[in-house]
Amino acid sequence: MTYCVAMNLSEGLVFVSDSRTNAGVDHIATFRKLYIFGVPGERLIVLQAAGNLATSQSVISLLRQRLKGKGPHLCSVDSLFEAAQLVGKTMREVVSRDAEPTMSAGVDLTCSFLLGGQIGEEPPALFNLYPQGNFIAATPDTPYFQIGESKYGKPILDRALTYQTPLDHALRCALISFDSTIRSNLSVALPLDVLVYRSGSLEVPKGYRVQEGDPYFEEIRDYWGGGLRRLLGELSSPPDGYWN
Amino acid sequence: MTYCVAMNLSEGLVFVSDSRTNAGVDHIATFRKLYIFGVPGERLIVLQAAGNLATSQSVISLLRQRLKGKGPHLCSVDSLFEAAQLVGKTMREVVSRDAEPTMSAGVDLTCSFLLGGQIGEEPPALFNLYPQGNFIAATPDTPYFQIGESKYGKPILDRALTYQTPLDHALRCALISFDSTIRSNLSVALPLDVLVYRSGSLEVPKGYRVQEGDPYFEEIRDYWGGGLRRLLGELSSPPDGYWN
Repeated sequence: MTYCVAMNLSEGLVFVSDSRTNAGVDHIATFRKLYIFGVPGERLIVLQAAGNLATSQSVISLLRQRLKGKGPHLCSVDSLFEAAQLVGKTMREVVSRDAEPTMSAGVDLTCSFLLGGQIGEEPPALFNLYPQGNFIAATPDTPYFQIGESKYGKPILDRALTYQTPLDHALRCALISFDSTIRSNLSVALPLDVLVYRSGSLEVPKGYRVQEGDPYFEEIRDYWGGGLRRLLGELSSPPDGYWN
Repeated sequence: MTYCVAMNLSEGLVFVSDSRTNAGVDHIATFRKLYIFGVPGERLIVLQAAGNLATSQSVISLLRQRLKGKGPHLCSVDSLFEAAQLVGKTMREVVSRDAEPTMSAGVDLTCSFLLGGQIGEEPPALFNLYPQGNFIAATPDTPYFQIGESKYGKPILDRALTYQTPLDHALRCALISFDSTIRSNLSVALPLDVLVYRSGSLEVPKGYRVQEGDPYFEEIRDYWGGGLRRLLGELSSPPDGYWN
């Protein structure tokens, strides 16, 4: 499985992905699922992938290969909307290439992507690309998207995240969402890939990898676990009616 | 959908169920999913159901009808293990009755149950009955079971609940688990049915229904939401590396 979350907030964008892939519980591996395209001072495009790894890797390889070609590519398109259209088209291209009926029967070849970034003067944007290659955009009402194993980590985002949440706070919230998911589901695991982008900077951050034993991640997961137990203790006791 | 949780702890048993059923988003209804069988001073058996409502209601009706018959029934069996076997058998009976191939093709007729309680001198027990009618028992290592829409509410149970957790604390933890699920998923909703049983009492509690606007539930969900946001604010800021 996989878990990726991306946020489009007033101060900028936050992306966090895990790196576990699995086919059954005895076939697990580590693959990066966060990919960066960009030209400093001009554009940043971040992609996060879930679903069939052969498909998503092929999509990324084609997108990279074409950066040198004459056709439209991620470093030539004029808007993130065009970038999302291009990625959707490439997804359909790869799936039709591989979908030979007698060989792929019963195999789900599809994948999904989150695509976020900023190009030139455009405001930053974030898209959720469905397996069909169509997509929706995040808005201030719904400023985040998840793909993959999203349920365990959703409650904290639903409770604590709004469009106005500062980046620093939002990043903590995303990391806690990952901690909750990792504790409850074996198919999501460290290392995590983190990338934070400040709106308008047009920088191309390298991103940060949270490895097993990362001191900050350890600190906040311990503090969070203790804090939750403390908070439960602070709730008042259920009244008599509850004990009937 | 449905969400039910049951716990078998050192002090006793906790059961909480929601009451929403749905077939599509425009066909929702309220049905109780927590059923009580018992003889004060002798036995308590609590059942919680998820899955096909026609099947689970038929199972409960047959179990109730047979309380007056001569065959083995829930108020005559000598142990909770036998009770679980009886419920499993009744589940298979109902599904085979309804599984007429030409009419039920493509319809999932199965349901699942949590069954907990205490009979006489036996220690309390809790079983998770799979759609096939077979079952597993909770142990001090894994003192709780969930059925239905379980993922949103699992992280808080995984973090805060152990076999030694006092009943009062465990009930708050279960209610928070429901609040998290209700906020993130439309198919789980109030009212909730709550039943707490103190080990060895052999009482047959009536249980409590948490309706929309229940003052205690409102109080703890507000406090919890505020507490989580406060806790996020208390986490230290991500170090510089995270911002690369």
